[in-house]
Amino acid sequence: MKIDILTLFPEMFQIFNHSIIGRAQESSLINISAVNIRDFSLNKHKKVDDYPYGGGAGMVMLAQPIVDSILEVKKRNRGKVIFLGPRGKTFNQEIAKELSKEEELIFLCGHYEGIDERAFKYIDMELSLGDFVLTGGEMACIPIVDSICRLIPGVLASEESFSEESFYSGLLEYPQYTRPVEFQGDTVPEVLMSGHHENIRKWRRTQSLIITKERRKDLFESFQLTKEDKKLLENYYGRKK
Amino acid sequence: MKIDILTLFPEMFQIFNHSIIGRAQESSLINISAVNIRDFSLNKHKKVDDYPYGGGAGMVMLAQPIVDSILEVKKRNRGKVIFLGPRGKTFNQEIAKELSKEEELIFLCGHYEGIDERAFKYIDMELSLGDFVLTGGEMACIPIVDSICRLIPGVLASEESFSEESFYSGLLEYPQYTRPVEFQGDTVPEVLMSGHHENIRKWRRTQSLIITKERRKDLFESFQLTKEDKKLLENYYGRKK
Repeated sequence: MKIDILTLFPEMFQIFNHSIIGRAQESSLINISAVNIRDFSLNKHKKVDDYPYGGGAGMVMLAQPIVDSILEVKKRNRGKVIFLGPRGKTFNQEIAKELSKEEELIFLCGHYEGIDERAFKYIDMELSLGDFVLTGGEMACIPIVDSICRLIPGVLASEESFSEESFYSGLLEYPQYTRPVEFQGDTVPEVLMSGHHENIRKWRRTQSLIITKERRKDLFESFQLTKEDKKLLENYYGRKK
Repeated sequence: MKIDILTLFPEMFQIFNHSIIGRAQESSLINISAVNIRDFSLNKHKKVDDYPYGGGAGMVMLAQPIVDSILEVKKRNRGKVIFLGPRGKTFNQEIAKELSKEEELIFLCGHYEGIDERAFKYIDMELSLGDFVLTGGEMACIPIVDSICRLIPGVLASEESFSEESFYSGLLEYPQYTRPVEFQGDTVPEVLMSGHHENIRKWRRTQSLIITKERRKDLFESFQLTKEDKKLLENYYGRKK
């Protein structure tokens, strides 16, 4: 996938030289370029923002350098232009899956108090990371790009398989244990060491169900319980009484 | 605020040397240190993960290096230990505000398929960035730390004032415009250039209300409309017909 990121802080995206995404870039599965919007300023002081019409705190990013940087990048990237902003759709795994199927994407990171509304003509989609305020779009762009890229076939090694992870199945993860059997007096649940695959599967499913029920009522309520799930929950809560 | 981040990828946190958080670190308002969990491995190969008991894809982070790194950092940081993980409470502005009042915080970033459940004894709080999967806790830690730090008094310069921003007032932001008056045939709405403060305020409030109503039904429905808000909406939708 070819990703171009338009930003005032291109050096922040060095973060993608590390870990899983760094490896995927080395093997050319992904190609991430950060483009400095400031380079497109026509102002002699390379100014990229100005005071808002109508007054108020904060500076607003000028439409011109944003639009010109989009037009320049579009010459080599035909992807959707995605703006990271607070008025966008809240990002989730569904959107990550959809976007991971694209071959090219362009991300636009705003800063300061916002961007001139007239730049939105050149934006195809606005995404928000969640209901909180960030210093800039870069902070939302980083996890969003990470989340999309890890779904691209080949980016995760087989041992990093993601089939059982949270938000794929709609339930939270069951507890995990690794060596040693005993740590500070706590031992690994016996079932996990039993070698009995069916019992392990049932134990894990039960744990996922109760953890989701207790911590994320909203997820649990929208989850379609199977017949087995209902039985596992009955057994668990029955036994607990 | 003193922040220690426990991670397998300390170099990722160089991102906080830039922009607003970088400036706040230079002026000692914030002090962010990234601590490598791998340095605490007692294994001769500095191993920090192992296969999960009970089988399944992925590697699980060992409890020992996590717990030892927490204990070491606790010698100089008495803050809450916050784990970034998918089973945590979803981060929002409310939590950002609460945590920005703390003097010290410790963040723990997990990687791979998860961490050994027995490490949770040393964790005070689990936070999730949203309903999507990331390559590691680092990707959630970065925007969360950013969102908390910008609320610390002195971190934002006065011209970056945040009083009117989205999620503070419970509404999304109104459109912003800056120079020039005309850009590619689009002009700034006249009211913003009128100098009539009361009309500008009303126009912006109306825009915030309708943008929230149209894009984020969930936010709009939980928002308490004032008498004026109802009148502004009536005027707007009346006029539109």
